[in-house]
Amino acid sequence: MTRQLHLNAFLMNTGHHEASWRLPESDPHAHVRLEHYVGLARTAERGTFDSLFLADGPQLWNSVGQRPSGALEPLTLLTALATATRHIGLIATASTSYNSPYNLARKFASLDIISGGRAGWNIVTTAGADAARNFGLAAEPAHAERYARAAEFLDVALKLWDSWEDDVVVADKAAGVWGDAAKIHPPRHRGTYFSVEGALNVPRTPQGYPLLVQAGSSEDGKRFAARYAEAVFTAQQTLQDAQAFYADLKSRTAAAGRDPDGLKVLPGIVPVVGSTEAEARAAERVLEEHIVHRHGVAHLEGLLRLPPDTLELDAPLPSDLPPESAIEGAKSRYTLVVELARRERLTVRQLIGRLGGGRGHLTFAGTPEQVADAIETWFTRGAADGFNIMPAVLPSGLDAFVDHVVPVLRARGLLRTEYGPRQTLRERYGLPRPANQYTAGAPALV
Amino acid sequence: MTRQLHLNAFLMNTGHHEASWRLPESDPHAHVRLEHYVGLARTAERGTFDSLFLADGPQLWNSVGQRPSGALEPLTLLTALATATRHIGLIATASTSYNSPYNLARKFASLDIISGGRAGWNIVTTAGADAARNFGLAAEPAHAERYARAAEFLDVALKLWDSWEDDVVVADKAAGVWGDAAKIHPPRHRGTYFSVEGALNVPRTPQGYPLLVQAGSSEDGKRFAARYAEAVFTAQQTLQDAQAFYADLKSRTAAAGRDPDGLKVLPGIVPVVGSTEAEARAAERVLEEHIVHRHGVAHLEGLLRLPPDTLELDAPLPSDLPPESAIEGAKSRYTLVVELARRERLTVRQLIGRLGGGRGHLTFAGTPEQVADAIETWFTRGAADGFNIMPAVLPSGLDAFVDHVVPVLRARGLLRTEYGPRQTLRERYGLPRPANQYTAGAPALV
Repeated sequence: MTRQLHLNAFLMNTGHHEASWRLPESDPHAHVRLEHYVGLARTAERGTFDSLFLADGPQLWNSVGQRPSGALEPLTLLTALATATRHIGLIATASTSYNSPYNLARKFASLDIISGGRAGWNIVTTAGADAARNFGLAAEPAHAERYARAAEFLDVALKLWDSWEDDVVVADKAAGVWGDAAKIHPPRHRGTYFSVEGALNVPRTPQGYPLLVQAGSSEDGKRFAARYAEAVFTAQQTLQDAQAFYADLKSRTAAAGRDPDGLKVLPGIVPVVGSTEAEARAAERVLEEHIVHRHGVAHLEGLLRLPPDTLELDAPLPSDLPPESAIEGAKSRYTLVVELARRERLTVRQLIGRLGGGRGHLTFAGTPEQVADAIETWFTRGAADGFNIMPAVLPSGLDAFVDHVVPVLRARGLLRTEYGPRQTLRERYGLPRPANQYTAGAPALV
Repeated sequence: MTRQLHLNAFLMNTGHHEASWRLPESDPHAHVRLEHYVGLARTAERGTFDSLFLADGPQLWNSVGQRPSGALEPLTLLTALATATRHIGLIATASTSYNSPYNLARKFASLDIISGGRAGWNIVTTAGADAARNFGLAAEPAHAERYARAAEFLDVALKLWDSWEDDVVVADKAAGVWGDAAKIHPPRHRGTYFSVEGALNVPRTPQGYPLLVQAGSSEDGKRFAARYAEAVFTAQQTLQDAQAFYADLKSRTAAAGRDPDGLKVLPGIVPVVGSTEAEARAAERVLEEHIVHRHGVAHLEGLLRLPPDTLELDAPLPSDLPPESAIEGAKSRYTLVVELARRERLTVRQLIGRLGGGRGHLTFAGTPEQVADAIETWFTRGAADGFNIMPAVLPSGLDAFVDHVVPVLRARGLLRTEYGPRQTLRERYGLPRPANQYTAGAPALV
């Protein structure tokens, strides 16, 4: 069988384009309506996607005046979606900086059981002072400290998820013995950031633990991914950059003593599908025309750490921007934006147009065959194991992708035509169920 | 219309009797099977219950060898149940000691939106060192400190739930203006236990915030309930005690400046239904015969803070037990058990038999008419606004209650015969939607 493409649907409000909510078709309340997400999840399942994904940050963005703001908390929403779907994986973002391992491990274990082994965790360290100030901190912790805490968080969570061996339950009703307490392993963890004594109060789950996903592309982020991640979401603007990122991450994974095929790389793309290329370009232009440039300038100034009213719409970026090393958080996004502007000699207005669609992710616009061509090229030329699909407008952009691009990918033998028997999320991605670190003779997990 | 009874179904594993899992009919894996809970929720909805409820503690009880252990995390499980039901309220236990207000407020707000206004929060402060040691503490915080933190937690959570006024959304697509940022109110809270700066990232919900439920019956617990709670679960062994508790809590609520009818008192009862009284008593005896007394003694020694192997099965409790004031956590449970043993002159063996069924809650055993009589007596004689129904065996005990006792209660005009139009949980309990504390002219919340 041909190597198979992995597809993840990144669901966000009325779409990834910041102006999508202004289109006549869009429901400005969709982002807090369960039915909106149920519809999207079922469409993604119709397209035999591996998984769907929700981003998250524990703060209200300063955007209420500009576009739909607020959200349903991802683990809660995905649990509701678990009961409305049957096959698709469910990946929730959750922060290692603003959760405790015991609580979060319980929630993911519960979702994994309820969904029949379809839970995934997009591990984030959460940049920004706004989030920090919602959790008793005066400022955000330093980048390196956030990653150190994340690594310890993972180690504790993995111990908790393994704290029940798979065969604890005896269920001897006659003797009145339910389980074998010798097969329960309290972590007894004492570390820098956490002390966690007792075993989890959820039995080991269908997958053992959720699929571990990561999306930071900074140096710290890549080191973390090589050690823990089974899937990586990334923003890459050119085939060459994507190939370099792919090769680098696979070799880091091997260097960490892991099978490089045990980590799947999924660049984010914004597919814009038309019956002709011109039609696709026209749809892009309609969205660009709905951008409020004043908001775009303010957002860009924030991303580039510039004072308000520094940027001019029809001029290029200033030439004296600081290097990535001077930036705290969203480091790789910073570099991507600066390099995009310089490589393509974009004005601020043009840059805002390019970023409005996918916040730095690449747009593949054209006919279904052209979009499929671009996907196949990246997939077969060492740039991707699959893609994180980020439609500019939802639900219409996901409908278009599933109705028109998916059939082309299937005809080329790159994507399953049906799900077949029920599988866990990890099985969909072709990954083995992890052994339990406490089971005698089993190999160590990490 | 006759004053209406409120019924809550307290769902626990294969039943509230500790030996229920040993019956031939019981599934020893039921407690981690979604279908088990979906079946129970639908039965409760068939019985037009107001709500269902899940207890919780963030630790694994030391009981793996004895009975089904571990659980699905309540907020996760209730979210799944929200999509499988239509009318019934969904009350999750969550701890103020081991959560952060921002995270928990988001989750309850999300569940309230997803369920169409059916979320409730059973507020607990979580006694015990085992839980504390899963969250970086060496020992449990003192009782009074846990309640001080709980009060501040509630104040912050109420600010977060009110941080969006109801009419934030403008949705002016032509102007590119989504919401009115002036109607967002960041809490900017700086307190003893919490600092929370920003507004919640979930809009105000159908109920404004979840129904606030509480179950601690200690002095601190009653003070807290009088200030915040809209429903109280309690364990009372005699009509006289229940009347005294009811009157005391209502007068404390009035003294706190609230309408006493704005707090509903629901004693827990274990209904054991037979076609004759003898059949009900026989069902009780079968369960008692399945109790492993060795485990019961150990549990009782823990509850009474006695060293292991202190108690003798066929002797009464020691006469020199400490007073409640010397006990940390589960204070009212301690007193209830000691008083029950002394009042009825029970041996340890008899006491364990009485506690095995409902851990201190009262059993109403008999024919459907006899159970309905007891309910009606308590309800009409100032002891209860409704009941927390705790079947000894699940699902069979809930089936029996709904099939045989509910029709009697309906025939007496005490319980709705159908749900009628969709209502929020708070509406089911006959309580008004709270005003937003930030809306000009609205009365203060608490």
